[in-house]
Amino acid sequence: MESLKKRILKEGRAVGSDRINVDGFINHQIDVKLMEDMGEEFRRRFQGIKVDKILTIEASGIAIGIAAAKAFGYPPVVFAKKAKPNTMVDDCYIHEAMSFTKGEKRQITVAKKYLSEGEQVLILDDFLAHGEAASALAAMVEEAGAKVAGIGVAVCKNQQGGKARLEEKGYKVEALALIKDISDGEIFFE
Amino acid sequence: MESLKKRILKEGRAVGSDRINVDGFINHQIDVKLMEDMGEEFRRRFQGIKVDKILTIEASGIAIGIAAAKAFGYPPVVFAKKAKPNTMVDDCYIHEAMSFTKGEKRQITVAKKYLSEGEQVLILDDFLAHGEAASALAAMVEEAGAKVAGIGVAVCKNQQGGKARLEEKGYKVEALALIKDISDGEIFFE
Repeated sequence: MESLKKRILKEGRAVGSDRINVDGFINHQIDVKLMEDMGEEFRRRFQGIKVDKILTIEASGIAIGIAAAKAFGYPPVVFAKKAKPNTMVDDCYIHEAMSFTKGEKRQITVAKKYLSEGEQVLILDDFLAHGEAASALAAMVEEAGAKVAGIGVAVCKNQQGGKARLEEKGYKVEALALIKDISDGEIFFE
Repeated sequence: MESLKKRILKEGRAVGSDRINVDGFINHQIDVKLMEDMGEEFRRRFQGIKVDKILTIEASGIAIGIAAAKAFGYPPVVFAKKAKPNTMVDDCYIHEAMSFTKGEKRQITVAKKYLSEGEQVLILDDFLAHGEAASALAAMVEEAGAKVAGIGVAVCKNQQGGKARLEEKGYKVEALALIKDISDGEIFFE
């Protein structure tokens, strides 16, 4: 997606050799118009695929999921939680996933009643690095007897192998900006 | 807002005497169309007030902020973070706030560069209980030399006093569903 790649080159900052900071329009301050355009682009990339539900993960994933919902005809958007709040009393799917950005293993949680057998679930997230979060979400979808309609991410750091790993498992993965390499403060796309 | 109150009565669950669970359409699974309608309602309630930026807080606040952005002409949406990720290298405003739902004191963080002097900032969130998060966000806005355009929340548990406390400080506070009391598993509105 050209507009996203241009924005990353203009405002994104390489942090070391394996991270990029896009706090100005995705991860802290959000350009909602750009995110809605990303939603339209996901709809095009997953053309012809039925989507009954969007599944994402807090925090930044929520922005992507909400902004994309309109393009998919407003399916329910479910976001996995990284800590179980004291108002959550339901039976849950719980998986561990290493967060690359936070540098720690986290339990991610989805209440069982929000994933149903036979549903087609599109997984959306902001970043794909090693694919730990997306793998955990996909496992939950399948535990529920639902089907992964696809996995869409705004930015994929392809050198970290997550996309290839998810594709090996048979998932259709679409990244709107596919990064090949980060070196000397520069970001290179595939 | 009648449609929100009806939905709360239909699907919300009272948890003890001071919490309600609206995981089916706000806090875990999200009805994006309802949230966009909430955005339109905020626009009506803050009619005539200039809004240059929307400020909210992760996680559920993000959904409200994103869904409301369109009604306000797509201002940037900034969300405060509850933990500083390792891609964040900027100078930040940091305040402590007790999270009523999580039952713990948390540091909430906003990078200084995303709040600017003279801006009119609308604070949006899902819940208002004691008003700790909203107070911390308002303090950051003022530290930046910006102005709080107003504070809008989806659900206010009025018996916990947060709304009155914020109004005493001079803020215009709008709650789309104003709860008076929760008792014996029933939710009563003002």
